[in-house]
Amino acid sequence: MSLWDKYSAVRSHSVLICSKLQKEDYVVQPVVDVSPPKWHLGHTTWFFETFILIPNAFAYQPFNPDYNYVFNSYYENIGARVIRTDRGNLSRPTVDEVFQYRAYVDEAMEKYLPGLTDPTVLELLELGLNHEQQHQELLWYDIKYILGHNPLFPEYAADNIESGLVNSAEGWADFNEGVYEIGYQGDGFHFDNELGRHKVYIQNFSISTRLVSNADYLEFIRAGGYQDFNLWHAEAWDWVNKNNITAPMYWYEVDGIWHRYSLSGLETLKPEEPVSHISYYEAAAFAQWKGMRLPTEFEWEVASVQLDWGKLWEWTESAYLPYPGFSKAAGALGEYNGKFMVNQKVLRGASVATPAGHGRNTYRNFFHPNLRWMFSGIRLSK
Amino acid sequence: MSLWDKYSAVRSHSVLICSKLQKEDYVVQPVVDVSPPKWHLGHTTWFFETFILIPNAFAYQPFNPDYNYVFNSYYENIGARVIRTDRGNLSRPTVDEVFQYRAYVDEAMEKYLPGLTDPTVLELLELGLNHEQQHQELLWYDIKYILGHNPLFPEYAADNIESGLVNSAEGWADFNEGVYEIGYQGDGFHFDNELGRHKVYIQNFSISTRLVSNADYLEFIRAGGYQDFNLWHAEAWDWVNKNNITAPMYWYEVDGIWHRYSLSGLETLKPEEPVSHISYYEAAAFAQWKGMRLPTEFEWEVASVQLDWGKLWEWTESAYLPYPGFSKAAGALGEYNGKFMVNQKVLRGASVATPAGHGRNTYRNFFHPNLRWMFSGIRLSK
Amino acid sequence: MSLWDKYSAVRSHSVLICSKLQKEDYVVQPVVDVSPPKWHLGHTTWFFETFILIPNAFAYQPFNPDYNYVFNSYYENIGARVIRTDRGNLSRPTVDEVFQYRAYVDEAMEKYLPGLTDPTVLELLELGLNHEQQHQELLWYDIKYILGHNPLFPEYAADNIESGLVNSAEGWADFNEGVYEIGYQGDGFHFDNELGRHKVYIQNFSISTRLVSNADYLEFIRAGGYQDFNLWHAEAWDWVNKNNITAPMYWYEVDGIWHRYSLSGLETLKPEEPVSHISYYEAAAFAQWKGMRLPTEFEWEVASVQLDWGKLWEWTESAYLPYPGFSKAAGALGEYNGKFMVNQKVLRGASVATPAGHGRNTYRNFFHPNLRWMFSGIRLSK
Amino acid sequence: MSLWDKYSAVRSHSVLICSKLQKEDYVVQPVVDVSPPKWHLGHTTWFFETFILIPNAFAYQPFNPDYNYVFNSYYENIGARVIRTDRGNLSRPTVDEVFQYRAYVDEAMEKYLPGLTDPTVLELLELGLNHEQQHQELLWYDIKYILGHNPLFPEYAADNIESGLVNSAEGWADFNEGVYEIGYQGDGFHFDNELGRHKVYIQNFSISTRLVSNADYLEFIRAGGYQDFNLWHAEAWDWVNKNNITAPMYWYEVDGIWHRYSLSGLETLKPEEPVSHISYYEAAAFAQWKGMRLPTEFEWEVASVQLDWGKLWEWTESAYLPYPGFSKAAGALGEYNGKFMVNQKVLRGASVATPAGHGRNTYRNFFHPNLRWMFSGIRLSK
Repeated sequence: MSLWDKYSAVRSHSVLICSKLQKEDYVVQPVVDVSPPKWHLGHTTWFFETFILIPNAFAYQPFNPDYNYVFNSYYENIGARVIRTDRGNLSRPTVDEVFQYRAYVDEAMEKYLPGLTDPTVLELLELGLNHEQQHQELLWYDIKYILGHNPLFPEYAADNIESGLVNSAEGWADFNEGVYEIGYQGDGFHFDNELGRHKVYIQNFSISTRLVSNADYLEFIRAGGYQDFNLWHAEAWDWVNKNNITAPMYWYEVDGIWHRYSLSGLETLKPEEPVSHISYYEAAAFAQWKGMRLPTEFEWEVASVQLDWGKLWEWTESAYLPYPGFSKAAGALGEYNGKFMVNQKVLRGASVATPAGHGRNTYRNFFHPNLRWMFSGIRLSK
Repeated sequence: MSLWDKYSAVRSHSVLICSKLQKEDYVVQPVVDVSPPKWHLGHTTWFFETFILIPNAFAYQPFNPDYNYVFNSYYENIGARVIRTDRGNLSRPTVDEVFQYRAYVDEAMEKYLPGLTDPTVLELLELGLNHEQQHQELLWYDIKYILGHNPLFPEYAADNIESGLVNSAEGWADFNEGVYEIGYQGDGFHFDNELGRHKVYIQNFSISTRLVSNADYLEFIRAGGYQDFNLWHAEAWDWVNKNNITAPMYWYEVDGIWHRYSLSGLETLKPEEPVSHISYYEAAAFAQWKGMRLPTEFEWEVASVQLDWGKLWEWTESAYLPYPGFSKAAGALGEYNGKFMVNQKVLRGASVATPAGHGRNTYRNFFHPNLRWMFSGIRLSK
Repeated sequence: MSLWDKYSAVRSHSVLICSKLQKEDYVVQPVVDVSPPKWHLGHTTWFFETFILIPNAFAYQPFNPDYNYVFNSYYENIGARVIRTDRGNLSRPTVDEVFQYRAYVDEAMEKYLPGLTDPTVLELLELGLNHEQQHQELLWYDIKYILGHNPLFPEYAADNIESGLVNSAEGWADFNEGVYEIGYQGDGFHFDNELGRHKVYIQNFSISTRLVSNADYLEFIRAGGYQDFNLWHAEAWDWVNKNNITAPMYWYEVDGIWHRYSLSGLETLKPEEPVSHISYYEAAAFAQWKGMRLPTEFEWEVASVQLDWGKLWEWTESAYLPYPGFSKAAGALGEYNGKFMVNQKVLRGASVATPAGHGRNTYRNFFHPNLRWMFSGIRLSK
Repeated sequence: MSLWDKYSAVRSHSVLICSKLQKEDYVVQPVVDVSPPKWHLGHTTWFFETFILIPNAFAYQPFNPDYNYVFNSYYENIGARVIRTDRGNLSRPTVDEVFQYRAYVDEAMEKYLPGLTDPTVLELLELGLNHEQQHQELLWYDIKYILGHNPLFPEYAADNIESGLVNSAEGWADFNEGVYEIGYQGDGFHFDNELGRHKVYIQNFSISTRLVSNADYLEFIRAGGYQDFNLWHAEAWDWVNKNNITAPMYWYEVDGIWHRYSLSGLETLKPEEPVSHISYYEAAAFAQWKGMRLPTEFEWEVASVQLDWGKLWEWTESAYLPYPGFSKAAGALGEYNGKFMVNQKVLRGASVATPAGHGRNTYRNFFHPNLRWMFSGIRLSK
């Protein structure tokens, strides 16, 4: 498989995800965490233009010099940018212009890639492709949010990724205490936050082979879980009350029957499906109610060989912190992971929205504990 | 001219204003005061559907019952609605669907209007047309804001309404003190806030025949007007500092040369043009700096026969208050004007964005004193 | 009566108002509009020190140069100051130190006043005394707020100014339309905002000789007045909902019985007493519910000769605007009134908290329409 | 030492800390994290009354039933309470009343303690005393904040706890990788968050024997540390910019010379003193600038036998999380630690403000990463 084939396969998948959207769906930003789909399409393109073509491709002319301002996300090293909350205020560049931008950059990449042998640039290329895959996952979250928070509840498509939300059989896997090795080892792609490979001491633990289901979670709701402060962290309790949280995101009680918005539209709750779109706060409160707990990310990594995973990102009890010996790269690429290592929680696994081939059992995803627009779920430990 | 011809002329003008937009321009809401153009097109249609067709047209079926929720603006009597700050979060209904909605309602109106004789409904029809004209003016403000706050500064069209921003000759018109009559009198259309016709006592005054120009205003800036708290109301001074205001909206200093964004794009400042997009706070500070003042709305109405007006809405010193004997209609239509009669200032005249035939010299426009995205300007009095 | 006697009478009244306070009561600022009593005592002293002693009294040494920073209220011309919201964060200067400051300045004034003949300084002296009287009124508002919002509901004193809240007999006074003269005329003290004396045309009107009572207002509550949006201005309705307003300030329903906190403590509602601590928003909604309206400040001034007033400041429909020919003084004293002439409403009359001799029937008090910690009430007009 | 002697020794220390305050200093709350000293004195008393006397002491009558509302801090199980931001709005109960409350409860405790043998209550007693010691430390923080943020910069006392801020000699202690035991072991008092004792695997590390000094930190400032985003976490960079942070809390540059407010007043910076009042954000940025890092709490605990500690709480890289097997008690006492185990960082050691006998090398203090009003400092690791 040539570099171009590999590049082109990833790039076309982003376009495929958006293929069922109306032009208007590409533009809006209903909350700060959601970016307009056209922004994702532009930003991932900007990454290749800024970090590969401009510094390396002979005589490359940027498509539009103003796009650096429009499509930079958070790279302070690269200069000023549209503030994040303003992304949904930009009607221009239009969707057509963003697709022209993609075609222009792809054409330049098609010319550039055959001669590419510089290992530093090859590494950047691989990072750029993984970066685009991360935005593909975000595209699913954001598209679902945009459609699922519209009062008309439009469907994305009858057949979609959520059909993959099938639970595993009930059971517990047990592990003995001892010293285990954690972190990425090998020659494949990985992020800097998966290094260095290091030893940890883990106590005896058991971990569920099955994710918490909608039916399980409904019990928690019916038992008054959202009203019992004893189950919640102090900050979580503030969050519940300030936002009037009474159910997972996308759950709606209509005439006494619980529904869930999926990419197929509003439908009655499927009891066996794993519960999704859950914040850490809710995951921890549910575990507390069950008299159990969430696994640490180390337990999870050790157990992962016995788990059937890939449906939902699973909250862990672990804070997102550097591994021993972690160091970040110089310049803009050093901003990729390290600067987020405070006040976030690690999630492990992958989800139905994760592009094929993107996951690993050493992969460390991370989100703030109150967020739940991503495909997140709960696995219990004890 | 038949009712349908009259209706159809107003309706098609809204579409004409939007004809140069890209689909994406219809969707965004960069600040709370700006509504997405597609919302204006839907809301004005909803007005006719809700107040005329549903209660009166035989066997009329609403286009989509959910649209009442989507397109109600502020009529508490009509039920729940999308909160104002969320209008820009809605990608659906699409622009095409909004145009289908317009066509559907227009077709029903075409059938309904020939038989219409009920004076109450005729009054509602006229209100609906004037209401749509008011939104045509807002469409201009909002389109300009959306394009003019985009970092790419796209032009709307080379030839546009702003070519009408031509100033009158310098001079002062003088009036003697005495009792004058104020308010609407006649058989034509007028809003409830222009009634009742009543007497006021006015002192001697002079009023400028010319609006304050960009050149005049630039002098104020260069004299440090935005830095001298003595010129400003206390609330205005807070506003200046909190928002770092240093020039009118749409003014940009580029390499030492002042530019102004107009619907033709970014261009160097035209000194003779009347200064536009000015808040009351700025208008009052400018007048204070000149040792003059703004006219009251009564002075303005008396003087209007001698003024050449229609370029910019002119701030007055008058607060927006009920005239003696004012009473509001029952139900939803009573929400049109009366409930805004606190904390706003009256503007008189009309602007280049005002649809032909919509203005009157008794017309009372009103805005909060900090706003300036509308076509507003300054006329001095002494 | 010597200047010193006059000065001394006003100054000692401020101390008398505070005489029943605990030291802790002098310090707190529960909301931004309420200032700590020790701040009032210091600020009124600072006024005499800054505007009279420092520029005029031979060899006067300021008590403490840092006090200019601590006790300036809003005079931009006088330099930097503690921001208003921080007044309650200052434990120092202590109450004892503030009283020492008062004694020090009073002693200097006692030496200075006998030789004072300069008319400009005499004017400043009179302004300073009227300024202190205004703060005496604010002291009552603020003390009541501090005690009345404490969960222990401490009484100020069994016998206090609220015993003056006795209503007048029911009746209507009628006036004929015509030209009337408005504004201050004479040689006595008056504020710049009461000038210039000018003619206004007033339509026929009737004004109630009695203030709206607690019993009247209770009817409004029981009729669902706080739940009917048709009665409220749009901004008022937002205010009601955002702040969960369901009754006047200081009203508490305990076991089904309405109570009111007065300076004597919590007591059952007195039906005949005029309703107090009412915002403009509530006053206007009540008037709307009665099918009546509030008087304008001009009607009020014309009618005042037939009214028995002095219990509560009465909201008018008039916005606080400059009279024809109004001009403000240069420098700091010009900041006294003019810079507040936007977004506020005029109140007329006086209240049980107004110091004897401070009121006039041309006096223009003003507050934002949402405020109600002052002794304000409702008089109807039609 | 009898129970009463032990109780009485702790209780009188709280009073001693406050002995140099003016009455006004007891009342104010300049920011939400700072509580008024009188609130601390009341709240610690309320703890004994609520958890020991009311449920256990025969015929005990609460001092004032309303005090439960006033002095509950965050115990949801105990009922409604004054919201935290309102503590500084309460002038009552007065300082004298709070001291009467202390005396009343102490007298009841003096009667109750001699007969106390119930182990559950003995445990509560010990918790109550440790709780009061924690508030003694907070009293120092809050008193310093109240005085040090007053524009008059009053001193607390010439001789005070800050004289203990003496640094140790420079050096590094090295440790070998391996399995270590962490957590409290023994029969003494400890908090639930120090359990269970468990094994961790630690990599080779070196830890400084000396805290970062004012001189070290000044170098960081002079090198532009507060302007270089590469050194900061993303959230930290937002915090720096939003709050205009350019130096540690209590540092002031006066005429080009750096000063620091200590409890002795404003004085020139002492270069050798350990830098204090530092947020985690600043500690991490400083470490990044030095090319080093902060220790984990496990490294710290292992190294502690070789460290001379007790000057400042030392930020660690560890998030505040439950140890393996952690479980919280039922009811109100279960709210003591567990509910704060999200979004906070662990600090280890003790400070000059920690009461004698209160610290332990397994003690886990915790604060949000942006806070710095406590006596916190930096120890580097590599």
